[in-house]
Amino acid sequence: MIRFNNDYSQTGHPRVIEAVARTAGESHPGYGLDEHCDRARQIIRRVIGNPSADVHFVAGGTQANALVIRSLLAPYQGVLSASDGHINVHETGAIEFGGTKVIAVPAEDGKITATDIERHAVEFETSPVPEHVVEPKMAYLSFPNEFGALFSAAELREIADACHRHGWYLFIDGARLGYGLGSPACDATIQDVARAADVFTIGGTKCGALFGEAIVFSHEGLVPRFRSYIKQQGGMLAKGWLLGAQFEELFSDGLYFGITAHATELGLRIRDAFAAAGIPFQVASETNQQFVVLSDCQAERLAERYVFEPEGAAGEGRVCVRFCTSWATTDEEVDQLVEDIAVL
Amino acid sequence: MIRFNNDYSQTGHPRVIEAVARTAGESHPGYGLDEHCDRARQIIRRVIGNPSADVHFVAGGTQANALVIRSLLAPYQGVLSASDGHINVHETGAIEFGGTKVIAVPAEDGKITATDIERHAVEFETSPVPEHVVEPKMAYLSFPNEFGALFSAAELREIADACHRHGWYLFIDGARLGYGLGSPACDATIQDVARAADVFTIGGTKCGALFGEAIVFSHEGLVPRFRSYIKQQGGMLAKGWLLGAQFEELFSDGLYFGITAHATELGLRIRDAFAAAGIPFQVASETNQQFVVLSDCQAERLAERYVFEPEGAAGEGRVCVRFCTSWATTDEEVDQLVEDIAVL
Amino acid sequence: MIRFNNDYSQTGHPRVIEAVARTAGESHPGYGLDEHCDRARQIIRRVIGNPSADVHFVAGGTQANALVIRSLLAPYQGVLSASDGHINVHETGAIEFGGTKVIAVPAEDGKITATDIERHAVEFETSPVPEHVVEPKMAYLSFPNEFGALFSAAELREIADACHRHGWYLFIDGARLGYGLGSPACDATIQDVARAADVFTIGGTKCGALFGEAIVFSHEGLVPRFRSYIKQQGGMLAKGWLLGAQFEELFSDGLYFGITAHATELGLRIRDAFAAAGIPFQVASETNQQFVVLSDCQAERLAERYVFEPEGAAGEGRVCVRFCTSWATTDEEVDQLVEDIAVL
Amino acid sequence: MIRFNNDYSQTGHPRVIEAVARTAGESHPGYGLDEHCDRARQIIRRVIGNPSADVHFVAGGTQANALVIRSLLAPYQGVLSASDGHINVHETGAIEFGGTKVIAVPAEDGKITATDIERHAVEFETSPVPEHVVEPKMAYLSFPNEFGALFSAAELREIADACHRHGWYLFIDGARLGYGLGSPACDATIQDVARAADVFTIGGTKCGALFGEAIVFSHEGLVPRFRSYIKQQGGMLAKGWLLGAQFEELFSDGLYFGITAHATELGLRIRDAFAAAGIPFQVASETNQQFVVLSDCQAERLAERYVFEPEGAAGEGRVCVRFCTSWATTDEEVDQLVEDIAVL
Repeated sequence: MIRFNNDYSQTGHPRVIEAVARTAGESHPGYGLDEHCDRARQIIRRVIGNPSADVHFVAGGTQANALVIRSLLAPYQGVLSASDGHINVHETGAIEFGGTKVIAVPAEDGKITATDIERHAVEFETSPVPEHVVEPKMAYLSFPNEFGALFSAAELREIADACHRHGWYLFIDGARLGYGLGSPACDATIQDVARAADVFTIGGTKCGALFGEAIVFSHEGLVPRFRSYIKQQGGMLAKGWLLGAQFEELFSDGLYFGITAHATELGLRIRDAFAAAGIPFQVASETNQQFVVLSDCQAERLAERYVFEPEGAAGEGRVCVRFCTSWATTDEEVDQLVEDIAVL
Repeated sequence: MIRFNNDYSQTGHPRVIEAVARTAGESHPGYGLDEHCDRARQIIRRVIGNPSADVHFVAGGTQANALVIRSLLAPYQGVLSASDGHINVHETGAIEFGGTKVIAVPAEDGKITATDIERHAVEFETSPVPEHVVEPKMAYLSFPNEFGALFSAAELREIADACHRHGWYLFIDGARLGYGLGSPACDATIQDVARAADVFTIGGTKCGALFGEAIVFSHEGLVPRFRSYIKQQGGMLAKGWLLGAQFEELFSDGLYFGITAHATELGLRIRDAFAAAGIPFQVASETNQQFVVLSDCQAERLAERYVFEPEGAAGEGRVCVRFCTSWATTDEEVDQLVEDIAVL
Repeated sequence: MIRFNNDYSQTGHPRVIEAVARTAGESHPGYGLDEHCDRARQIIRRVIGNPSADVHFVAGGTQANALVIRSLLAPYQGVLSASDGHINVHETGAIEFGGTKVIAVPAEDGKITATDIERHAVEFETSPVPEHVVEPKMAYLSFPNEFGALFSAAELREIADACHRHGWYLFIDGARLGYGLGSPACDATIQDVARAADVFTIGGTKCGALFGEAIVFSHEGLVPRFRSYIKQQGGMLAKGWLLGAQFEELFSDGLYFGITAHATELGLRIRDAFAAAGIPFQVASETNQQFVVLSDCQAERLAERYVFEPEGAAGEGRVCVRFCTSWATTDEEVDQLVEDIAVL
Repeated sequence: MIRFNNDYSQTGHPRVIEAVARTAGESHPGYGLDEHCDRARQIIRRVIGNPSADVHFVAGGTQANALVIRSLLAPYQGVLSASDGHINVHETGAIEFGGTKVIAVPAEDGKITATDIERHAVEFETSPVPEHVVEPKMAYLSFPNEFGALFSAAELREIADACHRHGWYLFIDGARLGYGLGSPACDATIQDVARAADVFTIGGTKCGALFGEAIVFSHEGLVPRFRSYIKQQGGMLAKGWLLGAQFEELFSDGLYFGITAHATELGLRIRDAFAAAGIPFQVASETNQQFVVLSDCQAERLAERYVFEPEGAAGEGRVCVRFCTSWATTDEEVDQLVEDIAVL
């Protein structure tokens, strides 16, 4: 069976595994205060073009999202997210566990807009009873989002402008950042992301690492004592260098960007194959995730050789499914799939 | 100025104030363990037709809602509410402060339906990754709702059936319960509400009391140690008999139902006056709250003599406003308003 | 039966009840934005000698304590309290419900000292791993405390100095403030309390009001949007003028101070009677609460005519009990008790 | 420099690193639903002698502790811990972040006793106002504890009996479980620990793993939907097999027990060397951690060649320090240290 079900079903890129293994025999101070973390922080600051960024590493994406949101917002403030946003529907209420309301807005393609932000900000600012409502203070978006949609550099700027006009934070969840930046349809660079966001994450888990997400604040002091939040939430890895060593390797010579761009290229080959076969898409995606609507019969035939992710029934003997490539997907696997799609 | 801005701008019905004043000189055990509370509990059990109901009194509605929700739900469970529901938009994130997600559903007239419940229940029950999503476990509705809409007895039954089919709780927020039950358009009785709901509240604050809401669970033991939750949330009034004495008075001979029914009757006279004047409604309401769309000019003229509540701009020189009657509104005040509406 | 069991078993001082009743017929904006609250705030500012104090009213003491603590402290900070402190042992974990750790210190007579504060502050400031421990950032004390002990003006200053030297807040819980200030053994004034504390409460519930505590911050802006916290925690009374009218009455001409000083005078007469009868004290108290150790036989005899509060067994046929006077206790009741103590 | 500062300064035992590296090329379902986790769970059930144990893996100890406590306790319940307990002083309020009070009891050697439990249970059960106090419902102890102290098999049984007599849970934190079980002074086996505890953890991070703790509940269903709690708290590792593979390796042939027993043997050699040199101990420890009181001069001389952990000043030119061995400590390193201690 060839697996296209997700981008986190293999341990990690060989070079990353090797980097972790190389730490054997080394001895480090704990909790992220080691040389690997320091070097990884330096490299990331250079790559994103912000020498004063404040960089932290944690094990997973839900942890990162919950930490960022609850450390930046006061208890009476909330975060605006598309209804389909990861924090709203796929984190078992992690944000609410931290006491924060996710203000969900219906959004086409799962993308919030500068207009959404503007509308909610003005509604609050003109509210006759501000103490009776949650103050929206942060916009959350994922880049690319849960359905593979991208924001253009201009859209990012507009959203950031809307946020900052009203004193909000912009938080960009980059769990799949590499796959987005590596798309030919993407005109934004990681520097653009870093410039727009007050805080963003660089996903490792889905992009070649064993585990780990970098949290990047625009500057030191944006959250005083952020390390206390990490510890309190159970997110502080004793052997923090395991995170540092991975990011050091991924970012030292462009490995991160190379492997994810290739995965997206493969994803788009799959997209083109489906398009050529006249198979409709659930949503349009320019990244490593492709969402198509198959007949039950087509789905069954593909399921003989491939593992892919069910996304729910589509009515009348049809089903939505996701094909997902990763840094671990090979050209040969995609060649085979493309061939099989052609004769569906 | 004649006030139609809300139903909580006067201290309380004279008989309720008198009942509180009569407690002077009495001496009671604290924290709701007194005779007034006991008697009020007994009366309420009789009135709602459920001798085994578990009745508690707290000072306010947000407190009641937060207590009910967090004491019944596990941390990973959530409560379904119309987007416009009070718990979703007018309680400054009180529910999330308790760690619970409000799952907001867009709803016509602000009314969730049995179908909404069915759909969310099935979606969760068939989820391949239940531990990644909040388990919907309670439906919340207000009766009447924030816009004065009512649920018929049949709708309540259907909603309750949908809830219980899936092991959910049904929670009915009765902050304005009296105004709803007293409407000629209402075919549900308080017994119907009590039968449908696993827990409901009987609003005092807006219905003649100085303050206070009764929380009514369908049976003892539904929430073990609910009193501990009340204390922990800061909701346990030391001199609990102040709550008991008010509910005792309100429910002893139908006072509660009489004064709210009259207020709704007055509200409907206002509605009819606006309708006769050809003034459009923002939403249709059968209770003491009436939402109309006035031209700025009409609004200005009425504002010379009346206080009413702005509900937001309606575009093109028009504005939405609420006129609200209460147990304190007099026939004469409404006569005057009706007259003035006729010549707008 | 004559009740000496607590200071919150009667509805309220007649003048306070009357003040509430007088609001009948008035019409007010809700949520504490009314004239009564405004006037009460003005009077309190004048009485405490701080024209820029930020004053809020809530219904109860646990609510007030929880609000003050969670609005001032970051999630990783904690509050130092004597082990016996009300927030540590009598609020069902209300502070922890808000996410804050109570750092309990064993304390003689239940009184924390400047030395305790100094020690915990230095321990944190010199910690090699500050992010692994809760940062102590507030000292909590009650005045008088749970056992009737007082802090002298000098002690308050020392404690305040220790706090401010280390950037902590000092929070003084004044649930029984009047009884303490009215003691002949008390050399501190309400102005001293106000000067020492960054925030303190003025208890109404136990000192003549029906219910209600004033929260007094040393200046506006110490907690931005404190009203949002109140609403979120379910503590915002719709008819806020009920709180305002009571404090207005209590503080307009010294009523508050007069009635509580008299109660303390009566408490000290009881103390002297017990002392004269050679009956030992559990702790020394200079206020309206007196804690004595009775033989079971003595306790039984007094229980024939009086209600008092059991405080636990004292070994060998002896029991600790509390006699508590209040604004409602009469001279005659105490005369009788003193007589009966003399012949125990 | 030879490092004796802690037991988590090296990546992991070579066999564990190898086991992780071997997963390269494998493909697994995420979130702990893979074969490695399944096998590790089976092995652990066999080793502890409880075939129906419910086993979960998370990345770190604070995460494990917080999850166990908040998933088992209701919001109004608390956990009893020695004042020095890890959850009380070294987790930045993680337990309180989850809303639970840690009821700290002063304890000799940091060990709570059956008597402590009995006393707190009876105090609550006989409280006249149970809703005003936190209900103690769980006892927490670490085995060995933060100062290397052990509980005998008999002590564990007594503590468990006291807990179960009162309906409490016993939670044993085994962050350093191996080092304790491997001590010649330990008469308890892992089966004894498993029998006594309703839930315990098996620490990986400090005992040879890269990271990871096993949470072992005595039976399935003790916490319904525990996986939802894990996800909500951000503790669910996407690539869960990284945890499974490590525990599989550590427990497959006694590796875990062997390496930690050897480390404890080395720790005791260090202890004996200090004792022979007449150097006093801060506390008595029978495990891999040794706490001694050195003169500043002695500390300086040892610091020339060794890294060890400062534990605070001991007065009069003396200092408390910790020497800690681990699975990574070699016989030669200890030989050298023993030699140097002899000539201090």
